[in-house]
Amino acid sequence: MTYCLGIMTNKGLVLASDSRTNAGHDQANVARKMHSFVQEGERVFVLLTSGNLSIAQSVITLLRRDFNAGRGLATVNSLYDAARLVGEQVRAIAALDGPALKSDGMKFNIHVLLGGQVKGERSGLYMIYSQGNPLRASKDACFLQIGECKYGKPLLDRGVTYYDTTLSQAAKYAVLSMDATMRSNVTVGPPIDLTVYHEGELTIRDQRRINEQDPDLQAIHGKWEQSLRRLVAELPDVDMTETNPSFYVPKQDIEQRQLDLDG
Amino acid sequence: MTYCLGIMTNKGLVLASDSRTNAGHDQANVARKMHSFVQEGERVFVLLTSGNLSIAQSVITLLRRDFNAGRGLATVNSLYDAARLVGEQVRAIAALDGPALKSDGMKFNIHVLLGGQVKGERSGLYMIYSQGNPLRASKDACFLQIGECKYGKPLLDRGVTYYDTTLSQAAKYAVLSMDATMRSNVTVGPPIDLTVYHEGELTIRDQRRINEQDPDLQAIHGKWEQSLRRLVAELPDVDMTETNPSFYVPKQDIEQRQLDLDG
Repeated sequence: MTYCLGIMTNKGLVLASDSRTNAGHDQANVARKMHSFVQEGERVFVLLTSGNLSIAQSVITLLRRDFNAGRGLATVNSLYDAARLVGEQVRAIAALDGPALKSDGMKFNIHVLLGGQVKGERSGLYMIYSQGNPLRASKDACFLQIGECKYGKPLLDRGVTYYDTTLSQAAKYAVLSMDATMRSNVTVGPPIDLTVYHEGELTIRDQRRINEQDPDLQAIHGKWEQSLRRLVAELPDVDMTETNPSFYVPKQDIEQRQLDLDG
Repeated sequence: MTYCLGIMTNKGLVLASDSRTNAGHDQANVARKMHSFVQEGERVFVLLTSGNLSIAQSVITLLRRDFNAGRGLATVNSLYDAARLVGEQVRAIAALDGPALKSDGMKFNIHVLLGGQVKGERSGLYMIYSQGNPLRASKDACFLQIGECKYGKPLLDRGVTYYDTTLSQAAKYAVLSMDATMRSNVTVGPPIDLTVYHEGELTIRDQRRINEQDPDLQAIHGKWEQSLRRLVAELPDVDMTETNPSFYVPKQDIEQRQLDLDG
């Protein structure tokens, strides 16, 4: 499994990926799922991948080969064109590997997050589906996730907004969201790759790998858990008494409704 | 969809269920998923159901018919026996409806949470699978969920323990977990049914239905969101600089690893 996350704010982007790959439950490994393509001052692209690792590798390998030869992602003039180009690459690999996978009952499965900026535009964030079509993050829905999305989503829903969340806050949300997912799903695991992209810089200066034993991660994890418990303790109790009559359902009514439902 | 949750502590139980049912995306309705069977001073059972509503109704209807006639759940002498009896009822409905469902390509799908207490025992919590076999909550894994489990789990993982969590705290965790799930999955919805069962009481005195407009729910929701944001702001920043050399991966190394992975 995989969990990758992109957060778009008006100050830039935060991208995070886990590193665990598994085939079934008895074959786990480490693989980088974050891939950067940088032409300083011109264009920056960070790709995060989930799905079949072999497919993801082929997509990245061919994008990289073209990029290094000054083609493909090295030439696009907008992030939309970059997303379309990644989609074309996904479709090319689908044509190459899809039929053999499908004939053995397997899905052609890859999702890509693409965050970055092209000179002359603002930064942006896309998801590219297995079918190759792109979806853009918006100011209303300013983060995108691929892979094991659910455990790490409530926190982002509550905290992250396009205009108000700073990049350093977004980095903390990304780590917390990743930490929640790693705790609940053993097929999502460290190290975490983290990129913080500052609007307009057109280069990557903040990119690091966070291991399980990393003191920052330990500190965030520990302080978060402590603080959450304190917060819950401080919340008002749920009033279970009849002093709140419009919301209290006397026991007799509950039984009656059950009979209605069952009848 | 459904989200039901049971928390077992050494002070008693907290049980919560949402009330939304849906068949596809265009047919949503309200149905109670929490069902109480009480013989004061003798035995208390609270059942929460997920899965096919028709199947859940049949299971509850037949359990209720036997209970009202002084049979079945009215006679069991342990919570384990109650869980087994619920499982037998699930298997009886599987024999009745399973073949017709399967012949049309549908699964026989029901999960039941059973919380309660029988005189002479401590209270406890079980899940009964579609196949009728029971799973017991333990001191190490003191909560059980059925239905849409993922969104509401990280919070419980971090906060709930058998010995340290009070019943009023557990009720707050249950409401927060339900609130997180309702926010992320529109097929999980209010009202929330909530039961707080106090160890040894052998009756239900705290049971209520919480509507969407309930001031308690609004207060908890609002204060939680505010506090979470403040908490994140107070956490230490993720150090993205090279001052933490053992965890920083210089850009050149990252590129190298990508080539290894891709090669």
